[in-house]
Amino acid sequence: MHTQMSNFEVLFTEGHARRGRLKLAHGVIETPVFMPVGTYGAVKTLTPTDLENAGTQILLGNTYHLYLRPGLEVLGAFGGLHKFMNWQRPILTDSGGFQVFSLGQNRKISEDGVVFRSHLSGDKIELTPEKAAEIQRVIGSDIAMVLDECVALPATQEQLDQAVLRSYRWADRFLKEPRLKGQQIFGIFQGGTDIELRKKSLGLTLELPVDGIAIGGLSVGESHDEMIAVLEGVAPHLPPKLPHYLMGVGTPLDILEAVNQGVDMFDCVLPTRNARNGGLFTSDGLLNIRNQSHKLDDKPIDLECSCETCRGYSRGYLRHLFLTKEILGCRLATVHNVHYYHRLMLGIRSSLEAGTFRSFYEQWKPRLRAAYASEKSTDSVFGSGAQQE
Amino acid sequence: MHTQMSNFEVLFTEGHARRGRLKLAHGVIETPVFMPVGTYGAVKTLTPTDLENAGTQILLGNTYHLYLRPGLEVLGAFGGLHKFMNWQRPILTDSGGFQVFSLGQNRKISEDGVVFRSHLSGDKIELTPEKAAEIQRVIGSDIAMVLDECVALPATQEQLDQAVLRSYRWADRFLKEPRLKGQQIFGIFQGGTDIELRKKSLGLTLELPVDGIAIGGLSVGESHDEMIAVLEGVAPHLPPKLPHYLMGVGTPLDILEAVNQGVDMFDCVLPTRNARNGGLFTSDGLLNIRNQSHKLDDKPIDLECSCETCRGYSRGYLRHLFLTKEILGCRLATVHNVHYYHRLMLGIRSSLEAGTFRSFYEQWKPRLRAAYASEKSTDSVFGSGAQQE
Repeated sequence: MHTQMSNFEVLFTEGHARRGRLKLAHGVIETPVFMPVGTYGAVKTLTPTDLENAGTQILLGNTYHLYLRPGLEVLGAFGGLHKFMNWQRPILTDSGGFQVFSLGQNRKISEDGVVFRSHLSGDKIELTPEKAAEIQRVIGSDIAMVLDECVALPATQEQLDQAVLRSYRWADRFLKEPRLKGQQIFGIFQGGTDIELRKKSLGLTLELPVDGIAIGGLSVGESHDEMIAVLEGVAPHLPPKLPHYLMGVGTPLDILEAVNQGVDMFDCVLPTRNARNGGLFTSDGLLNIRNQSHKLDDKPIDLECSCETCRGYSRGYLRHLFLTKEILGCRLATVHNVHYYHRLMLGIRSSLEAGTFRSFYEQWKPRLRAAYASEKSTDSVFGSGAQQE
Repeated sequence: MHTQMSNFEVLFTEGHARRGRLKLAHGVIETPVFMPVGTYGAVKTLTPTDLENAGTQILLGNTYHLYLRPGLEVLGAFGGLHKFMNWQRPILTDSGGFQVFSLGQNRKISEDGVVFRSHLSGDKIELTPEKAAEIQRVIGSDIAMVLDECVALPATQEQLDQAVLRSYRWADRFLKEPRLKGQQIFGIFQGGTDIELRKKSLGLTLELPVDGIAIGGLSVGESHDEMIAVLEGVAPHLPPKLPHYLMGVGTPLDILEAVNQGVDMFDCVLPTRNARNGGLFTSDGLLNIRNQSHKLDDKPIDLECSCETCRGYSRGYLRHLFLTKEILGCRLATVHNVHYYHRLMLGIRSSLEAGTFRSFYEQWKPRLRAAYASEKSTDSVFGSGAQQE
């Protein structure tokens, strides 16, 4: 196996759950960790300083979007995404595959790769494993993801089987490409909700020199319970010495459950996208700041929260900003939601350090289920959970 | 005359130009001063902390907009605008008159006041001197402006004469209303470009117990040279012991010329509105950040600038943010432009303290004229200079 796996250290475990530490080119990150999504080289409305203040250790950048804008010429000239966007801490980039597959009719898959039309210019563009590796080298991310074939669920057995084999062959080609110094490369396994196929895909992926393993093909249409069932099925087989990344997930409840099954890393657009729609995360569920009930409320979003927004601004003022379409409202809401996710991860990490994760889990699972899974009103806000911001 | 005029102290003079200090309920401001416009209780995209970091001493709030949203019920419940928006420093509010007059066909003026239809709900609303005073008491601004009748230029002599007399009667009624403790009230004189009428209006206004005097009815359609001619005509007659405020002005050149004619206070939407359109203020003129020429440029907007934006971000990155419609671009551009205006005022104040304003003026006038008056391309960006943000 690959020698770089020593970059990841598991400090504490409790059941499948792990408290780990991952050394990357731009710094060390403490896991379990949540990565805010900065599609175009910016987490919408926030500066790098805001992100650091909110507790962000590592960002996710979208290869597909960055390849279209600003493109490799600009990213190359600026010496990569870190310098371009003035972010000093680690960055993980997806491979662009997920976005390309979500283009639907506008892309054509072959063994060589995916040909698609830019959603901006209409230009025909080819994404191959070699190209995905090149783009991520130019971006200079700390963690690059292999190009995989992602299948929307439900799918036929043949579609799932083929995606597993093709993803393996593409990962193999990706990993044979030149490697940027210090850049780690994570493999991705597929298999839909079929546990046996998942185990086969995981085994194939681990034949390759990967620095981490990602669970792909979830958060693509299946239910929360189906997703958790997959995690339960694969958890005993995940490589103990590599970091485990669940792509594009999820709600606070999803994250708690996934940590309980041994997942170390997460990314999702929920906190940032909800913020711009006026949906604010609290211990009691998603709060719609536009509601009339907040009109005269001088309390912060969450009395327990110490973010910049909760320290300085009332619900009544935030509601006013949303009703008047003031950009500052989106910004202050984003600060809060990102902080909420990081605080959840901090709580999880602290309980693992103290050996009390089991009770943390038992305490928070019903609260988060009540807050984020049982209410119909949250479904439309949560949407599809797609990785693109 | 009114006893509160001792709140203003002139520290240095050079020609008509003055370096002053104005004591207000929420703090002391150093003049000449520029006031960014926060129409709805927020300077678009910025927090109070951002404003303080950029050098903002005092904000302008728009009475008309705040009356419609969030309205007096909310502003009253929160104890005024300062607490509502979390801004500790002084606030000046206009009277709402300018916005109402700019509604054109949708308002009807009588001796009692102005009746207009809300641009939001279509509801019929009346703005009288008494109502304008009440709204500004609830807002709790440090400086309230009397309700005046503002006339668009060009106008007939009869229109101008009537506006002068009506503005005087309305100011008299306004000043007879109860006064919020510590709130200062500025009068406004009119008269278009007619110097004799201006002098008459000024004299009438100074019969009233005003704490400061504003030059109204400029930046309403006349040319830069016409505006400067009015300032030259009235400068010798402005009351030396009161602060002089030129409403809704202006470009950097306008401000330099107006300081030279004895103006102490300014507000304008140019820095904030231009920022959101990608127009960035520099010593060499307005820079359109969308231009292709900035694509690979790793220099900041302005090498001489020390704002947060210029310290952390390149022209190439800012261009990318604007092309991808990232809100962060508007925010970083606004930080820079507001800082630019405050730095201009700081330069003016420093030169007055050093007794070198004359040479500062001679040095900067041709530069600013070349940068901000001669280029056709800036005309469309500068627009009408209306006070509303």
